[in-house]
Amino acid sequence: MELSRSRRSLIQRLHRSKTRAREGRVLVEGVRAVRDVLAAGVRPDFAVVSPRASELGGDDIRASLGEAGVEVARVEDRDFAELAGTETPQGLLIVVPEPAAPELPAQGTTLLVLDGVQDPGNVGTLIRTAAGLGVGGVIALDGTADPWGARAVRASAGAAFRIPVFRTKAELFLDRWRGPLWVAELGGPPLEGGVLRSDEWALVLGSEGSGPRAEVAGAADLRLTLPLRNGVESLNVASAGAILLSLLTLRAPGDPDS
Amino acid sequence: MELSRSRRSLIQRLHRSKTRAREGRVLVEGVRAVRDVLAAGVRPDFAVVSPRASELGGDDIRASLGEAGVEVARVEDRDFAELAGTETPQGLLIVVPEPAAPELPAQGTTLLVLDGVQDPGNVGTLIRTAAGLGVGGVIALDGTADPWGARAVRASAGAAFRIPVFRTKAELFLDRWRGPLWVAELGGPPLEGGVLRSDEWALVLGSEGSGPRAEVAGAADLRLTLPLRNGVESLNVASAGAILLSLLTLRAPGDPDS
Repeated sequence: MELSRSRRSLIQRLHRSKTRAREGRVLVEGVRAVRDVLAAGVRPDFAVVSPRASELGGDDIRASLGEAGVEVARVEDRDFAELAGTETPQGLLIVVPEPAAPELPAQGTTLLVLDGVQDPGNVGTLIRTAAGLGVGGVIALDGTADPWGARAVRASAGAAFRIPVFRTKAELFLDRWRGPLWVAELGGPPLEGGVLRSDEWALVLGSEGSGPRAEVAGAADLRLTLPLRNGVESLNVASAGAILLSLLTLRAPGDPDS
Repeated sequence: MELSRSRRSLIQRLHRSKTRAREGRVLVEGVRAVRDVLAAGVRPDFAVVSPRASELGGDDIRASLGEAGVEVARVEDRDFAELAGTETPQGLLIVVPEPAAPELPAQGTTLLVLDGVQDPGNVGTLIRTAAGLGVGGVIALDGTADPWGARAVRASAGAAFRIPVFRTKAELFLDRWRGPLWVAELGGPPLEGGVLRSDEWALVLGSEGSGPRAEVAGAADLRLTLPLRNGVESLNVASAGAILLSLLTLRAPGDPDS
């Protein structure tokens, strides 16, 4: 099947954050990324393949898309490279619906809140970690990279389709959330409050450079800080987030309630 | 000062892993990366700057390099872009000596061992996390990205100069190491053995796809596995490593020996 002009134009719009959000669609490129998203149970609107995908082991995906009744358009490698907009196009992309976010939670769940995390790879990696550790959802506040951009989706390895992901403004989140609000501070004095385990919290991670914005930090009930050594002042935000989330969610076998 | 032909040629050789290792020198590019490496107390052989660095806030670094007696060569932005080999050259690079690695440890320390971690960003991020958590050293086995390559050094944020980093072959490491050998398995059954805390271990992280090689996995005294939820099969290797290293190193306030 040929790639229609309207779909070609849609793919172009999905490359830019603003027009992407308006379409409510997500572009997923690359054999592994597509495999991950399909494994999360997502049904694509359509797929585009070029011969390159076969060389990279994507034949089984193409076949299963066809069997599932998904329209698969075929294009040449050169044409695909222009559509994909990546440095090393892999000859396979799908367009999928952005999951409808449920209502912003007010309490009774656990949330990872990203405030000003600008690198889309870190945003995707944090969503993957949060999903894997059983966190209830991820909120991307304004100023954070689009969790539905291509790089974030690739880094999330499909996890963005496995837990609720919200995009909202900081003031709306602060207005609505009634549960405990914890803010991570990278570097600084040792972990306060020890290892906390509860079923209701929102943990805010800020940008690597400047941390969460003042109004968010000011609303915090508690600051969580990792004790660092060797003169290291901070960790990568995705690594610091992984450590803090694991401290909040993993139960050691000796725990009374494990 | 002009950039001499021999230094220009050295910089070119530092872009390729093989010739880089032969030179025993490390190329660090970018305002933030240079700042991080200087903060770790490293003295550069020489520096190269272009006007672009001033726009990016690198003037103080240039000044402090000059005060410290480091030779600073000035080139035009276009010339710098060719030298730097990055997509968005920042007009500031330094060449520093690769730290002389001490003898490969046999026991009595804690080690993060990377077996087949191919993404240099993950290698650098893991070195940063290991240094921050007080791990005794990092070993990059053959098949792992060069920890002294530009991308790894940038991701390590200078941490590679703060703890010992070794490059060696798997069989040499296995021959030499007498302490407990633990291997991380991403995904799978829940964490075995609970939270272990001791002052002597080597934790092996393998590639995201296939884990450590069979001869390394086969030599393990213990497998550490993170329990994952929501159908997530694995985490990013730098995130999984951060979680496991924190479980092995961070002491909660309630711990008897904290």
